[in-house]
Amino acid sequence: MNGNTNSNMEKELVQEATTENFAFDPILYAAQYKSELLDNILPFWMEHSKDAVNGGYFTCLDRDGRVYDTDKFIWLQGRQVWCFAYMYKQIEQNPEWLAFAKHGADFLEKFGRDAEGNWYFSMTADGKPLIQPYNIFSDAFATMAFAAMDKADPNPRYKQIALDTFAHIIRRQHNWKGSYNKAYPGTRPLRNFSLPMILSNLSLEMEHILGAERVNSFIPTVIHDVMEVFYQPEHGLILENVNPDGSFSDSFEGRLINPGHAIEAMWFIMDLGERLGDKTLIRKAVNIMLNTLEYGWDKEFGGLYYFLDIKGNPTQQLEWDQKLWWVHVEALVALAKAYMHTGDAACAEWFNRVHAYTWKHFKDPEHGEWFGYLNRRGEAYLPLKGGKWKGCFHIPRALFQVWKTMEKIQQKNNAQ
Amino acid sequence: MNGNTNSNMEKELVQEATTENFAFDPILYAAQYKSELLDNILPFWMEHSKDAVNGGYFTCLDRDGRVYDTDKFIWLQGRQVWCFAYMYKQIEQNPEWLAFAKHGADFLEKFGRDAEGNWYFSMTADGKPLIQPYNIFSDAFATMAFAAMDKADPNPRYKQIALDTFAHIIRRQHNWKGSYNKAYPGTRPLRNFSLPMILSNLSLEMEHILGAERVNSFIPTVIHDVMEVFYQPEHGLILENVNPDGSFSDSFEGRLINPGHAIEAMWFIMDLGERLGDKTLIRKAVNIMLNTLEYGWDKEFGGLYYFLDIKGNPTQQLEWDQKLWWVHVEALVALAKAYMHTGDAACAEWFNRVHAYTWKHFKDPEHGEWFGYLNRRGEAYLPLKGGKWKGCFHIPRALFQVWKTMEKIQQKNNAQ
Repeated sequence: MNGNTNSNMEKELVQEATTENFAFDPILYAAQYKSELLDNILPFWMEHSKDAVNGGYFTCLDRDGRVYDTDKFIWLQGRQVWCFAYMYKQIEQNPEWLAFAKHGADFLEKFGRDAEGNWYFSMTADGKPLIQPYNIFSDAFATMAFAAMDKADPNPRYKQIALDTFAHIIRRQHNWKGSYNKAYPGTRPLRNFSLPMILSNLSLEMEHILGAERVNSFIPTVIHDVMEVFYQPEHGLILENVNPDGSFSDSFEGRLINPGHAIEAMWFIMDLGERLGDKTLIRKAVNIMLNTLEYGWDKEFGGLYYFLDIKGNPTQQLEWDQKLWWVHVEALVALAKAYMHTGDAACAEWFNRVHAYTWKHFKDPEHGEWFGYLNRRGEAYLPLKGGKWKGCFHIPRALFQVWKTMEKIQQKNNAQ
Repeated sequence: MNGNTNSNMEKELVQEATTENFAFDPILYAAQYKSELLDNILPFWMEHSKDAVNGGYFTCLDRDGRVYDTDKFIWLQGRQVWCFAYMYKQIEQNPEWLAFAKHGADFLEKFGRDAEGNWYFSMTADGKPLIQPYNIFSDAFATMAFAAMDKADPNPRYKQIALDTFAHIIRRQHNWKGSYNKAYPGTRPLRNFSLPMILSNLSLEMEHILGAERVNSFIPTVIHDVMEVFYQPEHGLILENVNPDGSFSDSFEGRLINPGHAIEAMWFIMDLGERLGDKTLIRKAVNIMLNTLEYGWDKEFGGLYYFLDIKGNPTQQLEWDQKLWWVHVEALVALAKAYMHTGDAACAEWFNRVHAYTWKHFKDPEHGEWFGYLNRRGEAYLPLKGGKWKGCFHIPRALFQVWKTMEKIQQKNNAQ
């Protein structure tokens, strides 16, 4: 790569950071997101990720889909089961999708848990446990997987696994690192945003099993945690870690902003607001999302930063200025939903901007699927399509959500 | 930053990647490294890092030396004590240096250990434990600190702390993560390179306390581990993790190459070789160092990569292509020593190349000290001079080692 190429690339980046070339056209957007999901993403994973010998999925896929590592991570096994079961239920009853979801669910059911029912973090290709159940999000994504399986193909075994695992999560929620917690008790007892955030989505994913009443009993706490405890009104931003009383901790962890996390959580909250018919809550979520986009957007190279320090100090994260796939596709979902709920022109403008950046930099026109990891300049510095953390989840979920939301926006437009 | 600036910068990078403009002049190099140590690095830390209220050092220093976080990390407290005690002993008996070392040693002695004598990982500014003693390298750098204190200012208390901690390390060495180990027992029991590597240096740092005989009893195992178990002759490279029998593990951990680690270890081995009068061992270490430099050098932008996968697969480390201060200054030490021992022209050429890159990109001409973290293009993407991992250690140690080695090379040249 020489200096000229970079100059040209930067000129194009400047151009795309304006929105004048993009009309917010829900019909075109719906068609584009639908086609990408059905013609590119789902086929890529069906073709490349199946472990036909041991069951389950390979997720470490190189640029062209080649399997470069065979370890199996419960997060990604569970998320891929969820994805194909969900698409089967929501789009069409394609028996290949259900069989593919079941291929992963069977593997998880057989090998994924220890004797107490806690989900390992990772396993070898043939299901031997590699990393202990130190991470409660393994349980969260296993719950999502079996809840979706039960919805797609009702089965008391799936239901029971989802229920048992959900009960584990609730029981462990205040001390979820258990004996793996390295924090000395009492010195700086921070609360972390991830679990309330995941629960705000998981409770709805589980509603057909838990029942409306039980979900209703969760929702106020989850909304309070996300929108009162972690949200800092004086900045209009959500912090990743706060003191137990919700106050600011002036420490590396306390100063940390994860724009993608906050933005993703805001569409979970919009979904809860929709369920509750609470327009004030939705508007608040939209405002936090817009603030976070303004705050987290790289004004020089475009794209959303991965981590920032709320006081502008150096972060501990060496990857702070990188541009990650999930951050951008979750922002697209949040923006589409925000526009659907509010009709706010700022949401349409931001959608156009994030859409332009995302499709230009993340999509791989040559080998299918999307890159996951871009440097600050928007160049893929890891060619992978899947790894330890990137699997078949954020992109297909986002494509589906944007597609369906654009259809609803179009219906609203037609009705007016 | 616009396209033109980048074009110019890249042209300069190409220019500096040739060595024709640099003569390997040990007199000039000795003067340059000495002056940088005495006139820039040590004064910067004396001026900005002292916690006059609580004792110990602040290490989270922004570009201009401002303290942006007050947490104290045992690695960096211990390393800074070592640094000032070592310089006091080796360069001149400057009472300010000794007092500054003692300032940190007193804090460590008072607050650094749990009831069993294990060293915490981090503490608050006023010495409350924050992160539990999960990391044996905290103990290693505390040992180095008190061994150096005892050398600078002999004291049975310092000696005892060094001895006790060293005994802890030896006792824990085969299961040093203890209850914090997340690996499921037996599935993939890898050995990690870090501890043998650190022991190859620590045993010499401790020799005045342990005695020559005890050090002699360690050395063969340490050399065997580094040069036989982790070294892979078919690649000429050292792996970060191997199967217990030293064979290759085709996993993320097993494929990992950390060029800086391997190169730093090679100068530890050269020091052991010098002590043993073993020229074959020294030549082997020089060859591995040169191989690793060839393998780890970024042919496009210059500098040494942080991590690589030996099969060329994507790494798990998102920071794999970044250029870190310690990697480059440790390479300079290894190259200077390699040239001193062998007179091999390849070592002089490589020294010139790494010297040119390092001084151009890491040194901050405006605010003193050196940047720690550069992106692939050699631009500082974190402005910090110190943080959780960068403190007062690698740069001053390397400046001292290169200065003294260049003097020895000059003496050899004069003697010829």
